[in-house]
Amino acid sequence: MPKLVYDFAEGNKDLKELLGGKGANLAEMTNLGLPVPPGFTISAEACKVYLATGSVPAELADEIDHHVDALQQKMGKKLGQADDPLLVSVRSGAAVSMPGMMETVLNVGLNDDSVNGLAHQSGNARFAWDAYRRLIQMFGKTVLGMEGDVFEDAIEAAKQAKGTRNDLDLDADDLEALVGTFKAAVREHTGRDFPQDPREQLDLATEAVFGSWNSERAILYRRQERIAADLGTAVSVCSMVFGNLGMDSGTGVAFTRDPSSGQPGVYGDYLQNAQGEDVVAGIRNTVPLADLEQIDRTSYDALMEIMATLEGHYKDLCDIEFTVERGKLWMLQTRVGKRTAAAAFRIATSLVDEGMIDTDEALRRVKGAQLAQLMFPRFDSDASKELITKAIGASPGAASGKVVFTSAAAVEAADRGEKVILVRRETNPDDLHGMIAAQGILTSRGGKTSHAAVVARGMGKTCVCGADDLDVNVAAEKVTVNGTTFGPGEVISIDGTTGEVFLGEVPVVPSPVVQYFEGSLAPDAGDELVAAVHRLMTHADEIRRLGVRTNADTADDAARARRFGAQGIGLCRTEHMFLGERRESVERLILSENAAEREAALAELEPLQRGDFLELLEAMDGLPVTIRLIDPPLHEFLPSMEDLAVKVALAKERGEEPGHEVKLLAAVQRLHEQNPMLGLRGVRLGLMIPGLFAMQVRAIASAAAELRKAGKDPRPEIMIPLVGAIQELQLARDEVERVLAEVAANATPAGATVTTEGGAGADEGGVGAGGGDAIADRGGVEWSTPIGTMIELPRAAVIADQIAEAADFFSFGTNDLTQTTWGFSRDDVEGSFFSRYLEKGIFAVSPFESIDREGVGSLVRTGVERGRATRPDLKLGICGEHGGDPDSIHFFHEVGLDYVSCSPFRIPVARLEAGRATLD
Amino acid sequence: MPKLVYDFAEGNKDLKELLGGKGANLAEMTNLGLPVPPGFTISAEACKVYLATGSVPAELADEIDHHVDALQQKMGKKLGQADDPLLVSVRSGAAVSMPGMMETVLNVGLNDDSVNGLAHQSGNARFAWDAYRRLIQMFGKTVLGMEGDVFEDAIEAAKQAKGTRNDLDLDADDLEALVGTFKAAVREHTGRDFPQDPREQLDLATEAVFGSWNSERAILYRRQERIAADLGTAVSVCSMVFGNLGMDSGTGVAFTRDPSSGQPGVYGDYLQNAQGEDVVAGIRNTVPLADLEQIDRTSYDALMEIMATLEGHYKDLCDIEFTVERGKLWMLQTRVGKRTAAAAFRIATSLVDEGMIDTDEALRRVKGAQLAQLMFPRFDSDASKELITKAIGASPGAASGKVVFTSAAAVEAADRGEKVILVRRETNPDDLHGMIAAQGILTSRGGKTSHAAVVARGMGKTCVCGADDLDVNVAAEKVTVNGTTFGPGEVISIDGTTGEVFLGEVPVVPSPVVQYFEGSLAPDAGDELVAAVHRLMTHADEIRRLGVRTNADTADDAARARRFGAQGIGLCRTEHMFLGERRESVERLILSENAAEREAALAELEPLQRGDFLELLEAMDGLPVTIRLIDPPLHEFLPSMEDLAVKVALAKERGEEPGHEVKLLAAVQRLHEQNPMLGLRGVRLGLMIPGLFAMQVRAIASAAAELRKAGKDPRPEIMIPLVGAIQELQLARDEVERVLAEVAANATPAGATVTTEGGAGADEGGVGAGGGDAIADRGGVEWSTPIGTMIELPRAAVIADQIAEAADFFSFGTNDLTQTTWGFSRDDVEGSFFSRYLEKGIFAVSPFESIDREGVGSLVRTGVERGRATRPDLKLGICGEHGGDPDSIHFFHEVGLDYVSCSPFRIPVARLEAGRATLD
Repeated sequence: MPKLVYDFAEGNKDLKELLGGKGANLAEMTNLGLPVPPGFTISAEACKVYLATGSVPAELADEIDHHVDALQQKMGKKLGQADDPLLVSVRSGAAVSMPGMMETVLNVGLNDDSVNGLAHQSGNARFAWDAYRRLIQMFGKTVLGMEGDVFEDAIEAAKQAKGTRNDLDLDADDLEALVGTFKAAVREHTGRDFPQDPREQLDLATEAVFGSWNSERAILYRRQERIAADLGTAVSVCSMVFGNLGMDSGTGVAFTRDPSSGQPGVYGDYLQNAQGEDVVAGIRNTVPLADLEQIDRTSYDALMEIMATLEGHYKDLCDIEFTVERGKLWMLQTRVGKRTAAAAFRIATSLVDEGMIDTDEALRRVKGAQLAQLMFPRFDSDASKELITKAIGASPGAASGKVVFTSAAAVEAADRGEKVILVRRETNPDDLHGMIAAQGILTSRGGKTSHAAVVARGMGKTCVCGADDLDVNVAAEKVTVNGTTFGPGEVISIDGTTGEVFLGEVPVVPSPVVQYFEGSLAPDAGDELVAAVHRLMTHADEIRRLGVRTNADTADDAARARRFGAQGIGLCRTEHMFLGERRESVERLILSENAAEREAALAELEPLQRGDFLELLEAMDGLPVTIRLIDPPLHEFLPSMEDLAVKVALAKERGEEPGHEVKLLAAVQRLHEQNPMLGLRGVRLGLMIPGLFAMQVRAIASAAAELRKAGKDPRPEIMIPLVGAIQELQLARDEVERVLAEVAANATPAGATVTTEGGAGADEGGVGAGGGDAIADRGGVEWSTPIGTMIELPRAAVIADQIAEAADFFSFGTNDLTQTTWGFSRDDVEGSFFSRYLEKGIFAVSPFESIDREGVGSLVRTGVERGRATRPDLKLGICGEHGGDPDSIHFFHEVGLDYVSCSPFRIPVARLEAGRATLD
Repeated sequence: MPKLVYDFAEGNKDLKELLGGKGANLAEMTNLGLPVPPGFTISAEACKVYLATGSVPAELADEIDHHVDALQQKMGKKLGQADDPLLVSVRSGAAVSMPGMMETVLNVGLNDDSVNGLAHQSGNARFAWDAYRRLIQMFGKTVLGMEGDVFEDAIEAAKQAKGTRNDLDLDADDLEALVGTFKAAVREHTGRDFPQDPREQLDLATEAVFGSWNSERAILYRRQERIAADLGTAVSVCSMVFGNLGMDSGTGVAFTRDPSSGQPGVYGDYLQNAQGEDVVAGIRNTVPLADLEQIDRTSYDALMEIMATLEGHYKDLCDIEFTVERGKLWMLQTRVGKRTAAAAFRIATSLVDEGMIDTDEALRRVKGAQLAQLMFPRFDSDASKELITKAIGASPGAASGKVVFTSAAAVEAADRGEKVILVRRETNPDDLHGMIAAQGILTSRGGKTSHAAVVARGMGKTCVCGADDLDVNVAAEKVTVNGTTFGPGEVISIDGTTGEVFLGEVPVVPSPVVQYFEGSLAPDAGDELVAAVHRLMTHADEIRRLGVRTNADTADDAARARRFGAQGIGLCRTEHMFLGERRESVERLILSENAAEREAALAELEPLQRGDFLELLEAMDGLPVTIRLIDPPLHEFLPSMEDLAVKVALAKERGEEPGHEVKLLAAVQRLHEQNPMLGLRGVRLGLMIPGLFAMQVRAIASAAAELRKAGKDPRPEIMIPLVGAIQELQLARDEVERVLAEVAANATPAGATVTTEGGAGADEGGVGAGGGDAIADRGGVEWSTPIGTMIELPRAAVIADQIAEAADFFSFGTNDLTQTTWGFSRDDVEGSFFSRYLEKGIFAVSPFESIDREGVGSLVRTGVERGRATRPDLKLGICGEHGGDPDSIHFFHEVGLDYVSCSPFRIPVARLEAGRATLD
């Protein structure tokens, strides 16, 4: 059995797995010579044994004896010593912060005898009895599992008897009486007396901390956060110091920089004559930390020096908890502090300027999610706002609109061009249309995993949820909140980042970070945040290996993405070009009954497609543009079968001639599929409908030829969707090559060279390196059109070695791959059971948001390995929505893809994370 | 470069890859001392070089020179020798038979000079000119790529000029004139003269054979049959012998046993004064082989001795081609002969009785597909039948019914209880309902991969297709065939095995093999086929490692499967128990708006389910019964949204009160999913609808408890469907265990032991070994209920190591796994593009019929490996339809599953193939 207990002097900050975050940082501060009250940490190893066997290891008692002895020796007093007791705190602390676990028991070591010694030593009987009261209360709740109300009710009764509402009005006698009441409650609830042996108190508290690792809440939290179930928690035992011994004592929290703005300079709060829990309880008001300079100059100076030491040591913003006991400063905790997104960027670059960290480290310190936050529009902070409540910011953004209570009302208002906020107690799948129609969603129930939250995030729609101050009465169509009432037609504004809800319309200001990316705000224009973002983006671009492309179907999107830094298009969905006014031609294509009709419909579509590609290729001139041939089932272009059936039935009933609808209904019924996601689509369509792929390829190739003639540098890449078998790809590729050769034969001047194979390799070489000129050896009229495929079916990943024989590139379609690997369709399940799955911890995050590394990711890895085994220079990208998700980007870097492709707005996040991924 | 050309004396029958089937067997016969005309074989290696480089290897010419010299020396005459030319045949021959390739050029070595020498030597000028004519014709077609009509037309013209319709009436002069015409045609079509140099003829023919490997037909054939593209073909060059030198010459084919019945005794045909191609052309009638004894006793005796030698040597039925040239017998080819299903069984057991092979080898010689053929009902062979045509037997079985021409008519007739045969030119997805309603399908177009054939096989429906004698006129509702006309209402009968079509109803006789399996015909009752089947089934059962279970939902099916040899139930689909009169309770469950309503609906269903399980467990008493908890989406139990919408709209239009339908429509719309296959089903339903799984488990456990009380031995196993994540399975398992413990607590007498974990391991031990008592240490009331899961999602296979932590067994659901791995839904695609995919060679066989080893199989293998890595004693089975497919069974044996489960009727096939798999 290894060592189980460590004196604070024996640990350091890197031993978090063993000593927990708290214990490791207490040890670090001890070794830095900072004033930490002596103590020791019982390691997580001991907890693991407890969890595995149900009892603490036999050796633990001896080790604790040994450390308690040493502590008593050092402090010159003993646990339970009647005239001058040593008191200790017992605190849980795992390697990762776990709010689901028991936190702290203070004042362990007090009993019926030693309470008098403490009173005598402190010269403060009220303090001593209050400390004993606190011990029994905390011990009762967290160790003995009693209801907190038992104790709160007793305190309330004591205050009522005294005729006061303030705890401080209870004097020593009152508190001594309360202790009696508490002890009786313990006896009643547990069948035994409150333990008088301090060592028994310590052992029971330790065991309770160990046991709290497997509390229901902790298990659920771990499942949701994907924290290993067998890590266990450490227990830190620390000698007590008191901030509540009089006005020369106090307690506070502080940050070494402003965690909100990131500005240099300490920042914090102080409360005289108080313990930490009093600060949390918020009974009295704290004063700014700066006031401590007046109150206790010595402690203030010591604190400033310590904070400088800590920042220099941790090389980051630290947050600390401290206590002053009768003019002596004690450090109770430190850790690298949380901060806002803006602060993260500013602190990271400031630390570089201050020489504390290098730019790589600065980049590690900022996250794509933080950058994304900075890119959402915000409410104008200078505008006057009427805050009505603050709840959970479930899906970021800022939205204003008229209140509606039903999906139907939302849809109607949206049809009239009005902006609305859908307000519900909670949402369910029936609300989907309303959620789509609304600017934002506000619910009074549910957390970040509620239906509203999950669906809104999936849509990128602003959402605030769990606003339990709101009394939402859908039937009466009104909301009451803190005395205010509002109803349909009234405008509210919701901030999906902060969770704030305002009455009335609040003006929205654009994000300066977006203005910078758009090019309308220069990085050196004086905005410090923008300057910081610029520095770190530049560094990310320099070091990243992954290229970043965009998913874009229009020239506008392509141009925007290019401004945002896209190095090409990774996915152009051509099916979007079959909508709108072109629907009629598509209808003719689908209804065609012979080759002539089919060809006529295709001939109508070809010039339109050609025009689309002209614009798109021109917008991305000089950069690769991956064009996916048509993918969805054709009946997506036809009206709903249900609506048509009703129309036809009603027309018959009325004796009218339904005409066209009858033919349409027959076609829709013929093409109807039980599961269109798993039906006739992608390459299957291309192989079944003669001329469809050829029409698209002709449109692409002739658009490119025209641009080349005009001196441009179009670089189309043709992508075949939904391939499951090498034979499918080979047949489609044969046709694509045939059409490319035909168009080239018509368009190529004598002597020019056209190639279709192997081009992707050359084309992408420069992109990974950061977006230089992609083709080194480009001649005057020499060009190539790489032909590749989506890997979006499990089978394609499994037989990627075969597929690679006919593909110049793979693009992993992780949306569809997630659907088929898990066997669920995003349309159907995200609204129906994902919220419950997230609640139950089956998912930590929706697999459509962040790549499921174990399942889908494993298939991606298989696809990469097998594909490259056949063709080492195979170009590999990903164009599912995961391409813009930070965690997924690190995974794609790790498995060796060449580029990610994402929506234009997520390009900056992808660039940043691609850079960060190289530092993993 | 290795040796490229082999004298017949240098090869043997095991060198098929090198010498092709023909060459290897010619070598074998040569070395057996049989009279094979001398010759040599150019190996497939030479072809591979040709295919890779586009030209024959440089060394080949020298090697051929050497072998030609040796041959000339042996034969005492030279190629092209003017007075007595050596003639050779040039024949292609790959390791596997490839009908898509060029077959043969005869008489190579003839030219304008040597034709006269041949005339002189044979004393038969007509013969010589006919031989020359044949050479130019075959050479023109197969080597020079000319259209066959060119030659046929010229022969036709010559006969017309002569006023005859018989080739034999053309004399030497006519044939000499025809040679002139043919040569002119060659010159016209190719721009050069017919090559006079015999060596050039030989080289061009060789190169043409090599090139034919990559003809379009050959490529398609290989793609469909999954033959490697780079095998290449060998070329056998054999000195010519002639069966057409007079009445003392002739040619024939023979079998060493009757390939139709399997009865001992030679069997064959002989044609005097003819070459092999004349037999094929069918111009004159052959005589039975026995007649040769009268015609040429010496040759006959020699042939009998040779056939005995060959059968003794190959230890199997051989088929041979031979020629008698002026009284001298020559062997031109032999191979192991094809045979009928019945013959396969009888020959295999006869050979055992004759001491030629052992029983293992006999089992290798019969196939599950043959056994399946023997189990289909057949038309009574003694009944008088009016055969109207014979086409392709596309889906076996025998069916009679009235002719219908449309799907609608088929459905209407079926609704009236009438049996119909759907007759179409070809079918398309619109005919699906009609195909379901009909007893059988008959088409005039398309082959074994046509839409009709594919869909019919998928349904197990009798189908004859490609009956191109039929003139099907759907508009006029009549069929004309060889002068007979029939129409709607007239009865026809189709045999899906033989492809025969009869007018009128033909009585069907049951299969004696099925009677044997059913127990109504004893194996020693005198039916030789049944005796043979019994012997080989018994042996298969003795040696197989795979257990064979059945998929059955009712006690009747279970009982039948048990008679057929099932060792338990591998899949009971409980959703079938929610249909019929129970639909109303299910509707109430779905429409329930609160817990009370839901629980009431579940309470209605529980006793019904309990009754189902009582019957099922009793029918399988003592054997494992794997019960899958409810799997499909609930809205499958509701009416169609389209129909309801029309009903509601019409009711509104008429001013009626639609009532219940409105509520139903709302529910159907709420539950509607775009892709129900990928929606809320399986374990997802169980986790979302409180009490649903618990109700089913309670029904199972209490049924089992009741049977145990009655002294029975029920062995339920509970299976959770559609698991993708370990958390899902763990949550479901927790609930199942809770309910099992509850029921056990109520039902268990004091002292009994109930376990739920690890039971599967013990339970299945005996099954693999052939179905002995499954639990060795079974006590009075000790039992266990294994809990396992389906592996039917790619993700489940990939994370099988995790899943195995909470599963006592896996059952691979290869139907759903095929759907998700390929990303297609069987309902949607089998009728829409599978036939085209089969035609194009993308599939060799539907992946729903036979397991896709490369894709789906790879995931099964992953699931097995990872599952057993976690839990070495994990019980593994498969319950998709592949469980009854012969090729798939070999795969499941190979990857190490414990059992397969299939429909009752396929149990015998599965037993046979499971036995055969151990011999692989």
